[in-house]
Amino acid sequence: MSGEGAAENRTWQHCVIVGAGLLGASIAGAGKARGLFARVTGVGRSRANLETARARGFVDDITSDLAAACNGADLVILATPVRTAVAQLASVAAATDASCAITDVGSVKGAIVAEACRLGLHERFVGAHPVAGKAETGAGAADVDLLRGAWVVLTPDDTTPPRLRQRMRGLWQELGARVLEMPAAQHDEVLASSSHLPQMVAYVLAAAAGASPLRKQVTQLAASGFRDTTRLAASDPDMWADIARLNREALLCAMDRFGVLWAKLRKAVDDGDEETLRSLIDDARDMRNEVVP
Amino acid sequence: MSGEGAAENRTWQHCVIVGAGLLGASIAGAGKARGLFARVTGVGRSRANLETARARGFVDDITSDLAAACNGADLVILATPVRTAVAQLASVAAATDASCAITDVGSVKGAIVAEACRLGLHERFVGAHPVAGKAETGAGAADVDLLRGAWVVLTPDDTTPPRLRQRMRGLWQELGARVLEMPAAQHDEVLASSSHLPQMVAYVLAAAAGASPLRKQVTQLAASGFRDTTRLAASDPDMWADIARLNREALLCAMDRFGVLWAKLRKAVDDGDEETLRSLIDDARDMRNEVVP
Repeated sequence: MSGEGAAENRTWQHCVIVGAGLLGASIAGAGKARGLFARVTGVGRSRANLETARARGFVDDITSDLAAACNGADLVILATPVRTAVAQLASVAAATDASCAITDVGSVKGAIVAEACRLGLHERFVGAHPVAGKAETGAGAADVDLLRGAWVVLTPDDTTPPRLRQRMRGLWQELGARVLEMPAAQHDEVLASSSHLPQMVAYVLAAAAGASPLRKQVTQLAASGFRDTTRLAASDPDMWADIARLNREALLCAMDRFGVLWAKLRKAVDDGDEETLRSLIDDARDMRNEVVP
Repeated sequence: MSGEGAAENRTWQHCVIVGAGLLGASIAGAGKARGLFARVTGVGRSRANLETARARGFVDDITSDLAAACNGADLVILATPVRTAVAQLASVAAATDASCAITDVGSVKGAIVAEACRLGLHERFVGAHPVAGKAETGAGAADVDLLRGAWVVLTPDDTTPPRLRQRMRGLWQELGARVLEMPAAQHDEVLASSSHLPQMVAYVLAAAAGASPLRKQVTQLAASGFRDTTRLAASDPDMWADIARLNREALLCAMDRFGVLWAKLRKAVDDGDEETLRSLIDDARDMRNEVVP
């Protein structure tokens, strides 16, 4: 942390956003708009996207050189895809000094927290997952209000200095988000059910409908129910292949809970067992009503 | 049919709508608004709902007496839940004469077409399924534009008189819909994949997420992806228990296609087999892009 009083200091002198996509550019823009970041450098591979972020006033400087960008930074936010972020953490650690705080935005937390531990970064890294997004991608779709009211999960552990933990909570709260803290393993287990399982279900549902011998008619008659239930199937395959790999164990556990209930429902339909069918429907409706009261 | 020239006649003197819910009241209202129905009688169990339909000008008369309502009708539209409609068909046939055409709106067609055949109604019954709806129910949510641009599947067969078939096509087209004709069994196979399978998937997904030991956190962090993928789980359980029973064989077939791909995906995640995972994701995206170009 940057010296005495840092825990009370809400502003950062030089924030580096690695990956100026939807989330990265939105965070950068919100931080600048709210006076949290005095200067923001956007790092990325796509020059055009970085230019967009700069033209919209969300970042001040742009570069593709991660190490050079990190020089003198007091905050680095890894907003690249989760597997990339894990790979970039060592470079960021090497290019910054002990006064620079580091966080990320990945939707799997175990892998990057383990990497931070391996690199001895517990004094300056806290994992974060803003549960926010929209269908569009890139800096052009960024929105300084994207985080407003969204949950951000932070995954500090017993080795995280209280002052850093407090400052990171403050950062996300100042960006408009609501903060939850939990261990990385618990985060990954929760997200396996709330996000990664629905994703796998949407893929298999779309593929299974497409495997019908009457695919043309199925496509023609697919209505809003089909469209909503398969919306996630349009998501970025690279990101989801990474998530399936990085959160393998928790995802398999959630998939197996699904598999057990799927077999139960199939048997109830086959047997005409209306009692079991209705009991499963009731459980589903209870959960749905809890999520969307 | 009502005498000479009926095939060319777009209007009906006395239409009976059995079930004045969202679909029934919308059809009644659209038919009156477009001058297709000179007079409409709404039949139902809920007096309050029928009063709403009448107050909105969608029906002229209301009653709970199906047989009395059908007396003298030249068109009866069964817009009750699919199992109820099958059960009511014999009463409608008995209460009307050979000049009265009969149709329905059920999302499973095999059962009611078989019942019409058993009752010897091939000269005056054509099954219909308007693929239209919205989350709200009842006459209060009815909308005279609900059918505009929607697909309506008709299930005539070789025994259907060409004149009746033509007049039924005309009815739905005049109501603003696009008409597709196919055999009842094919309709049920298509809908099993496009509609009934997504419904079962949404139920099992919501129930499986609810079965997580971290249910409270799953509920808290469930975002738009979870909400969209489980939206169907809020649907009416009675209707879906009926559909699962009436379309059992086609649904099981679609569920088994899902089950095979689910097992394949689970194994790919378990094995870290990225090639299989990506191939399944590609198939899913292809289908999704066909449905929502």
